[in-house]
Amino acid sequence: MIPASLTRSLVGACGRDGVIVDEDRLVVYESDALTAYRHRPGAVVLPRTTAQVRAVVRAIAQHGLPIVPRGAGTGLSGGAVALDGAVVVGTARMNRILAIDAANRRAVLQPGVINSELSEAARPHGLHYAPDPSSQTACTIGGNVAENSGGPHCLKYGVTSRYVTGLTVVLADGSAVRLGGRGRDAPGYDLVGLFVGSEGCFGIATEIEVGLLPLPEGVRTLLGVFDRIEDAGRAVSDIVSAGLLPAAMEIVDGPTIRAVEDSVFAAGYPTDAEAALVIEFDGMEAGLDADTARAAAFCADAGAREVRSARDENERTALWKGRKKAFGALGRIAPDLLVQDATVPRTTLPSILRGISEIGKRYRLVVANVFHAGDGNLHPNILFDRRDRDELERVERASGEIMQLCVDSGGTITGEHGVGLDKKHHMPLIHGPAELRAMWGVRRVFDPAGVMNPGKVLPEPPPAGGARDGSGVQEGRPATAAAARP
Amino acid sequence: MIPASLTRSLVGACGRDGVIVDEDRLVVYESDALTAYRHRPGAVVLPRTTAQVRAVVRAIAQHGLPIVPRGAGTGLSGGAVALDGAVVVGTARMNRILAIDAANRRAVLQPGVINSELSEAARPHGLHYAPDPSSQTACTIGGNVAENSGGPHCLKYGVTSRYVTGLTVVLADGSAVRLGGRGRDAPGYDLVGLFVGSEGCFGIATEIEVGLLPLPEGVRTLLGVFDRIEDAGRAVSDIVSAGLLPAAMEIVDGPTIRAVEDSVFAAGYPTDAEAALVIEFDGMEAGLDADTARAAAFCADAGAREVRSARDENERTALWKGRKKAFGALGRIAPDLLVQDATVPRTTLPSILRGISEIGKRYRLVVANVFHAGDGNLHPNILFDRRDRDELERVERASGEIMQLCVDSGGTITGEHGVGLDKKHHMPLIHGPAELRAMWGVRRVFDPAGVMNPGKVLPEPPPAGGARDGSGVQEGRPATAAAARP
Repeated sequence: MIPASLTRSLVGACGRDGVIVDEDRLVVYESDALTAYRHRPGAVVLPRTTAQVRAVVRAIAQHGLPIVPRGAGTGLSGGAVALDGAVVVGTARMNRILAIDAANRRAVLQPGVINSELSEAARPHGLHYAPDPSSQTACTIGGNVAENSGGPHCLKYGVTSRYVTGLTVVLADGSAVRLGGRGRDAPGYDLVGLFVGSEGCFGIATEIEVGLLPLPEGVRTLLGVFDRIEDAGRAVSDIVSAGLLPAAMEIVDGPTIRAVEDSVFAAGYPTDAEAALVIEFDGMEAGLDADTARAAAFCADAGAREVRSARDENERTALWKGRKKAFGALGRIAPDLLVQDATVPRTTLPSILRGISEIGKRYRLVVANVFHAGDGNLHPNILFDRRDRDELERVERASGEIMQLCVDSGGTITGEHGVGLDKKHHMPLIHGPAELRAMWGVRRVFDPAGVMNPGKVLPEPPPAGGARDGSGVQEGRPATAAAARP
Repeated sequence: MIPASLTRSLVGACGRDGVIVDEDRLVVYESDALTAYRHRPGAVVLPRTTAQVRAVVRAIAQHGLPIVPRGAGTGLSGGAVALDGAVVVGTARMNRILAIDAANRRAVLQPGVINSELSEAARPHGLHYAPDPSSQTACTIGGNVAENSGGPHCLKYGVTSRYVTGLTVVLADGSAVRLGGRGRDAPGYDLVGLFVGSEGCFGIATEIEVGLLPLPEGVRTLLGVFDRIEDAGRAVSDIVSAGLLPAAMEIVDGPTIRAVEDSVFAAGYPTDAEAALVIEFDGMEAGLDADTARAAAFCADAGAREVRSARDENERTALWKGRKKAFGALGRIAPDLLVQDATVPRTTLPSILRGISEIGKRYRLVVANVFHAGDGNLHPNILFDRRDRDELERVERASGEIMQLCVDSGGTITGEHGVGLDKKHHMPLIHGPAELRAMWGVRRVFDPAGVMNPGKVLPEPPPAGGARDGSGVQEGRPATAAAARP
């Protein structure tokens, strides 16, 4: 519930249909796709323009309320959850593509443009937008910028930060600042790169300039079927070691295969297999068949019992189906799903997959793995029912052990889902106190009063040493590399 | 001249052979490769370890002197020039490769490792370090990090920031902070990406973790010879539009060809040509010949009078020679050389090349172009003799007009050479006041007292609005996109 005076200001800026204050309609905005965290916002406001964003941000700030920027709400780290009655500024109506400069392969868009719609709009120009989160038919580019999102094809093409070249950003005081622009590598410090992945803590991006890539001339898709997941992991490792560069390499494990095949999304994967490995090559036609044949041979050498290859677009869609529908299918077989997101050195994949399986067995939990194998980006999904309090407790312990296992193997606590609310207490596993202070310092440069998405990303309170006064990282006492690895 | 007590501290930290205070030896450190700016440092200190860097930084800071980090001094923007009697902290003796993790394609090194030596060390593992500045046999990785360096093959592989995954940094107060690490995309704000390209203003990188790439299985190199530079520009544009992705596309213009052929570096380019276009493809063998044939056809269609292709490594070296020795050869035919560095939208290349040629003619100056054509990264070189004061004045006016031409065409003021001392007054051509304030803000997070490389990158004084107290970008008065484009 927000004060009536604020409601009036918001309605004045965005119109009555752009402001949500009814409790029953606010329920929709209680969580993002990580439904474990639920907090009802004080209000939701849906501006259409940079000017409207500036007006609503100013009005909210004047009332001393925190602000939570929100895209499509498909995030998996609780980043868009409104703590402490915050007002959600949603970008759903800022969904216009403002320009496509085909000759220079750039587009300028509002943040609420849906990821796959940008690629659709670029297609007539022979172009596409490369980062392709699994939620790409729903998630927005603004959300992708906030989370520095990846996707299956980021193995070859890289994540969001590689493609964002300029931003117009509204800050917590309602001012607008233009960062970068004019293509890659603007002179001076890289504030565009800094903003990408800042999870809504620095401001609200209201215009986004991105680079586009030419559509590949050809595509080849393979499916390797394995009786042991380690063998699929070895095929991935061998393919990369040979210098092949697939556009994507995705593993779907046995429990996931069975969930998919048991659902309306049945993709024709053998239900007694323990891993399906989807491999895709794209690029110029010349050479594609040779690369694909070599990858198929590596699968066979690693012990694949079968390697299928798609002969046309329909077959390609079928091979991908088991991967793309995995989360949906898993959601059907258990009331609750905890999606982990860790990146580990690729060489440690086989031992970590074994370790995760052991942790699952020890806690009597079903753990299903669907993941970006080529990047070493794991997504162990723990299936459970939160009404079973004993099971819930086992889930939490298993989840912590899986994260610790990944960190101990030289990995990180999140590959692409962001820190948000969910992982912020684990940040000291990866970053030392001096680096966390520096992060507080740069956050305060953009948002000195702590208005933008407070309570996310960084553990609180900020370590001593002046982060709140902007002097940030320095402290006299040094933070050595050793201290950064507790 | 620095106080004797400081000399004692520096010698105590680094040994007598690690400290230079003799005026005649300091001369060497008066400038970087942009010799127009000359300032003698108060002293030069050459530490070997992170601990020594911390000790010398503390000692210098205690004496209230500014600090200038320096790699090999090959920079082209005056970034390593020591203003106001600053003490230069050189990384020449920090030249150890600390680890190569071949399986995960990472290396950890000290900042003074020479760029090409890293690739040499990685070669036995079948790997290489991709960014390849033209000065790669002399420049250091630490300098590359400071400048976010590019190079011919960055067309395909991207610049330094794509490869740096972790840093140990010594800050202005002598503390050390570890940023990132553990491969790509550490959780939280991207401080590694922020540090890369910060031109020595945030601290001194003392350990650098980088990603390596597999050596390409095959390489094909072409040389297109053109009677008109616009035709070479059109060939570049057509090749890119067709979706081909060469590893490099470099143009050497007529004046440069003649300088090279007239030198000891003669490469066999026809001296009556107006452009030589070096095109290289690399990657898996399959498909390379087809790509190369298509690129050759685009050259012919654009009007190339000859297309040569290298049949072996010797011929490949020869085709590259005219490009690689261009700066050296130009340096021989004129006492002074002003190297511009602007990135423009690729589609504007033909008209901008014409415009630069017209500006040269109008000011009666020889302008020679050698550049990364595929990236739209121009390097017009103005040849002159600074003893001729009239000519010097014409050079300065021509240089300003060339820069303005590039900016007006949607380009930026520097593609890869950095801002340093040379371009800082031009930063408002690209960035609005709010963005410049934000840059001051993040700089102050790392270096609140302004000790690290003062007088570089950002125009002074910082615009009003609190940058010095770290609150940075906000000011109440908004900076619109329009204001950022003066």
